Amino acid sequence: MNVSELKKIIRDVPDFPKEGIIFKDITTLLINPDALKSSFDLILQECRKYSIDKVVGIESRGFILGIPIALELNVGFVPVRKPGKLPSETISETYELEYGTDSIEIHKDAIKPGEKVAVIDDLLATGGTAKAACNLVEKCGGEPVLAAFLIELTFLKGREKLKDRNIFALLDF
Amino acid sequence: MNVSELKKIIRDVPDFPKEGIIFKDITTLLINPDALKSSFDLILQECRKYSIDKVVGIESRGFILGIPIALELNVGFVPVRKPGKLPSETISETYELEYGTDSIEIHKDAIKPGEKVAVIDDLLATGGTAKAACNLVEKCGGEPVLAAFLIELTFLKGREKLKDRNIFALLDF
Repeated sequence: MNVSELKKIIRDVPDFPKEGIIFKDITTLLINPDALKSSFDLILQECRKYSIDKVVGIESRGFILGIPIALELNVGFVPVRKPGKLPSETISETYELEYGTDSIEIHKDAIKPGEKVAVIDDLLATGGTAKAACNLVEKCGGEPVLAAFLIELTFLKGREKLKDRNIFALLDF
Repeated sequence: MNVSELKKIIRDVPDFPKEGIIFKDITTLLINPDALKSSFDLILQECRKYSIDKVVGIESRGFILGIPIALELNVGFVPVRKPGKLPSETISETYELEYGTDSIEIHKDAIKPGEKVAVIDDLLATGGTAKAACNLVEKCGGEPVLAAFLIELTFLKGREKLKDRNIFALLDF
């Protein structure tokens, strides 16, 4: 399947999670074996353009594509999680939301200095989480060489927040 | 890597999430490319013994191995999530915790009647979540033919709660 076919498979759910928001539901893509395989292959193809030592996946839907990419590239996978979920020593990064702030964490020993990292998530929206994840990689001494997403909501201008990064989004809306 | 080598790679974290609990940390396995590949291959090999139409992964660490298994089996992936996370119409199942109850949800249209389903999670502990996930599959008309886990904490006797199911756990502690 090509990108325009894949875009049609994403389901619009109106008024989720709040009234007025049209939610892009990726479960209709995940449940379709051809769409899942094509999406995965296209993101993997982009990752192969870089020399990648580790894949970081952002909880929880970044885990979905992060692990198969790590398996195919034959590198390790590192989860970035919400506070309090990772059991060993962590480094934390706080980022702004529309109202208030949120944090994400990475295991301190997860990335070695100089390692080149691909950061994976399902959705690039405002870019806050992705920027924080890239910062965490840098705090560990790693280099976030690529941030790759299944979907980009271009009107939220997440790319501007990540302007010095290599960004790839498979499907833009 | 074989099972006894893989068991050594799981990290024990004492007093997480509470004092007195020794947490089995799988991140040390995920970060090791050989361990990740070996674990994945061994669970996949078990899944191939069944005719599987869909893979269900339980949020959030069931997403980790669920998607690559779905990709390899060339079937769809269905997430089971905590309440309020799935955007479209859901079916819910409540299960008991030590104190109180918890719920998980599946999209109502995710499993077709008669489909054979593998339920995947990282950990079989008391079996409450896995049992609830199998019940959700049955509520959709599907047949949970296998529940597969990376780790089983045998002293918590989760298998007893799932006694009529086919269970596979790669690493037991």
